[in-house]
Amino acid sequence: MMESTKLDAIARELFAREGCPSISGAHHRDGLMVAGQRAVIAVLEDLISVLFPGCYLTHEVGGADLAACARAVLGKAANSLQEQVRMAFEFACAVENCTPQCQTCQERATAVVEGMLGALPEILCVLQEDVEAAYEGDPAAKSTMEVVMSYPGVYAVIVHRIAHELYRAEVPLIPRMMSEHAHSRTGIDIHPGAQIGPGFFIDHGTGVVIGETCVIGKRVKLYQGVTLGALSFEKDAQGRLVKGVKRHPDVEDHVVVYAGATILGGRTRIGTGAVIGGNVWLTHSVPPGAKVYNQQPSPLIREVDGSWKTSQGPWQSAGDGI
Amino acid sequence: MMESTKLDAIARELFAREGCPSISGAHHRDGLMVAGQRAVIAVLEDLISVLFPGCYLTHEVGGADLAACARAVLGKAANSLQEQVRMAFEFACAVENCTPQCQTCQERATAVVEGMLGALPEILCVLQEDVEAAYEGDPAAKSTMEVVMSYPGVYAVIVHRIAHELYRAEVPLIPRMMSEHAHSRTGIDIHPGAQIGPGFFIDHGTGVVIGETCVIGKRVKLYQGVTLGALSFEKDAQGRLVKGVKRHPDVEDHVVVYAGATILGGRTRIGTGAVIGGNVWLTHSVPPGAKVYNQQPSPLIREVDGSWKTSQGPWQSAGDGI
Amino acid sequence: MMESTKLDAIARELFAREGCPSISGAHHRDGLMVAGQRAVIAVLEDLISVLFPGCYLTHEVGGADLAACARAVLGKAANSLQEQVRMAFEFACAVENCTPQCQTCQERATAVVEGMLGALPEILCVLQEDVEAAYEGDPAAKSTMEVVMSYPGVYAVIVHRIAHELYRAEVPLIPRMMSEHAHSRTGIDIHPGAQIGPGFFIDHGTGVVIGETCVIGKRVKLYQGVTLGALSFEKDAQGRLVKGVKRHPDVEDHVVVYAGATILGGRTRIGTGAVIGGNVWLTHSVPPGAKVYNQQPSPLIREVDGSWKTSQGPWQSAGDGI
Repeated sequence: MMESTKLDAIARELFAREGCPSISGAHHRDGLMVAGQRAVIAVLEDLISVLFPGCYLTHEVGGADLAACARAVLGKAANSLQEQVRMAFEFACAVENCTPQCQTCQERATAVVEGMLGALPEILCVLQEDVEAAYEGDPAAKSTMEVVMSYPGVYAVIVHRIAHELYRAEVPLIPRMMSEHAHSRTGIDIHPGAQIGPGFFIDHGTGVVIGETCVIGKRVKLYQGVTLGALSFEKDAQGRLVKGVKRHPDVEDHVVVYAGATILGGRTRIGTGAVIGGNVWLTHSVPPGAKVYNQQPSPLIREVDGSWKTSQGPWQSAGDGI
Repeated sequence: MMESTKLDAIARELFAREGCPSISGAHHRDGLMVAGQRAVIAVLEDLISVLFPGCYLTHEVGGADLAACARAVLGKAANSLQEQVRMAFEFACAVENCTPQCQTCQERATAVVEGMLGALPEILCVLQEDVEAAYEGDPAAKSTMEVVMSYPGVYAVIVHRIAHELYRAEVPLIPRMMSEHAHSRTGIDIHPGAQIGPGFFIDHGTGVVIGETCVIGKRVKLYQGVTLGALSFEKDAQGRLVKGVKRHPDVEDHVVVYAGATILGGRTRIGTGAVIGGNVWLTHSVPPGAKVYNQQPSPLIREVDGSWKTSQGPWQSAGDGI
Repeated sequence: MMESTKLDAIARELFAREGCPSISGAHHRDGLMVAGQRAVIAVLEDLISVLFPGCYLTHEVGGADLAACARAVLGKAANSLQEQVRMAFEFACAVENCTPQCQTCQERATAVVEGMLGALPEILCVLQEDVEAAYEGDPAAKSTMEVVMSYPGVYAVIVHRIAHELYRAEVPLIPRMMSEHAHSRTGIDIHPGAQIGPGFFIDHGTGVVIGETCVIGKRVKLYQGVTLGALSFEKDAQGRLVKGVKRHPDVEDHVVVYAGATILGGRTRIGTGAVIGGNVWLTHSVPPGAKVYNQQPSPLIREVDGSWKTSQGPWQSAGDGI
């Protein structure tokens, strides 16, 4: 057992440290209440279970009982979310030295939660298009039920559509906590600010990054390891990064982007129906209907007898069978 | 607090929505019982703890007590798995409009679980070869115990060998739920249909994708970011994807595939003992014993004085020291 | 229900199997007590909550109560960690056929835990530099609070700094269990042996691999998919891998490495202030201040009218706006 006086000394040093600046609210709390991560994740899971009770509800109920059960879960989630949103607004007010809105955190939280819950029926409708797109787009999918229960790309999109609603309502902290929960679970990193049309499908998904200012159209399909990112960051006169500018690409309807492709820049636009091949590195716009391939480096093969050859011509399929 | 009447209205809209089609069993349950994700994961964890009690058993017991404890965990897992498998068969019957097999879901579940548990001793034996391969293949590995407790590649293979047994028994939903649980935890996406020989090791692992119809031999080693995927998808006369055809490569014994390599296509075969270098993109077969390298693009270096040079010759090591 | 006699037979076969060798301590326990994964993760979470109570403490307390609460959590963590460390030392002694140190496992555990907890104030100070670096380095970051609560790169570094302290104290098993917990949660694989200076930031992070013998300077920034890895493994006269040699690169202060770059080899050194572009494959040292770009393959574009063109010149930006 460690001596009590040593523990006391360490605790004192941790909470009265000089010489290294404390991070607002993260190290010391100073009475500030912050949105608890577990509470936020619990709300998220409750909302998902109401959208897809057949997959995510923890109680087994059916028929009329299902509606009653979903109603109860919805009420619980609403109360908890309102509490978390209020604390998040209060945190932001405290950090930003209290604007006039500070008195209205409670009212703002109420309005946000009503908006969030009111949007659920529409979100469900869009998600059903996403699920159909996943089922149709993957030969390995056995049923839409399997897709909803198991596909990480579908889970990430469910979470994104909820988090994006809260992002649009300018709630601090909570949208990103939700999207990073999905990132942790799926390896898919969608910033809650990204705007994504219906029928969106990400296959496999690990390593996908979608930036804050992306705008993605309808029926777009991405594979694992795709980045829709920033080309460079603007800096202000003090050399600090400028926040809030358009930094990420636009992707129009019916575009397919194969595994490992990187598309960068706020002025880059991928036209309707374009196909971007595996590992392509793209920093320019491409027109509608274009097919973009890598001139893949031809691998060199050394055979057992010591002879060398190249295995294939200079162009290779982009993984899309064309 | 949100008004009760508003919550009622949202719940009503969610469960009686017209204009956007519901997804069978996922949104509405309609009395259909589906396999619960938590129950399936709990079974999986119980089976793993019986295979590796020294690492995964939650109770600390030893000697003769260990066998008794493992026996108890096995019995619990068998009962729960049987329940889940029965529900999964019933779900499939209901979706597929009830075949004659529908009356026999219970009997089929019993047979599947007996087969699954009966296969465990053989699975354990194969897993011990996997663990040895991991320990021998990684200079950072300090002990086989560390390998079993901590290596994501080992965890993913443990789960795969269990899920594959259920896949072979044609159980719906559950094998993929297990493999996606491992994917979530490890970033390694192995479809439960893939056939993988003993002594298989994936180092680091994040971003690895192994497709449904892959066939992998003995003592194969993969690094992070390797894809064994499909080159293109066949479509039927209606333009829908054809499901069930061979789409993914064969990898023979003693092959090593370095980080980020992509190997695509159902007719692509990597011969015994071949070495595939980092980031190689391969859509053709290679013969036994071949070494396949990228002609890596030579990076350009701009030094501080403004001069340019290339840092290295046109060929680079594949990361395998040759 | 499965027959009891069948379960008995399977359990017997699992624990008295001949013909396939058992893995020391992993399959059979033989009375050996091993560090429980859940206990180790619980200690890790307690230590993190003491470092950042505003984000990770589970109880809501403020002011003077906060210090008392943190003190209590610290004491609980110290006791549990000491127990786990002792078991890990005992495991190593048993595997290595009991050195003279075997009698001193308890004493060694006490010393390790005192060292670990005594290092927390200094670790906190370094972490605050990491958090500042993350906030300043990402235009999407809204507050340092958001960074601590949500950024996977920050979480991975918090865990690494704790695990590295235990690695330096030569504790078996536990450091790697902690780092693989972070890997599972974030997709960022930092070996606990890596030496990393203050102000370290990994953006997005999925797929990052940092090897055991890396040495990283101050204010270094990495993006998703970066590998700092080994070029090849030395083998001894018996053909077995040599463990413990310097295999991974050195990265000096103020270096930036963009997404997907691969830097390999124990003699590879990236000089101060160098910038390594996206997808660069580097196995040689580069001097301070150098900018390293890929000659990206120019993607080929086939437009709808069937004509071909290349979308851009042979050189492309490395994603750093230069």
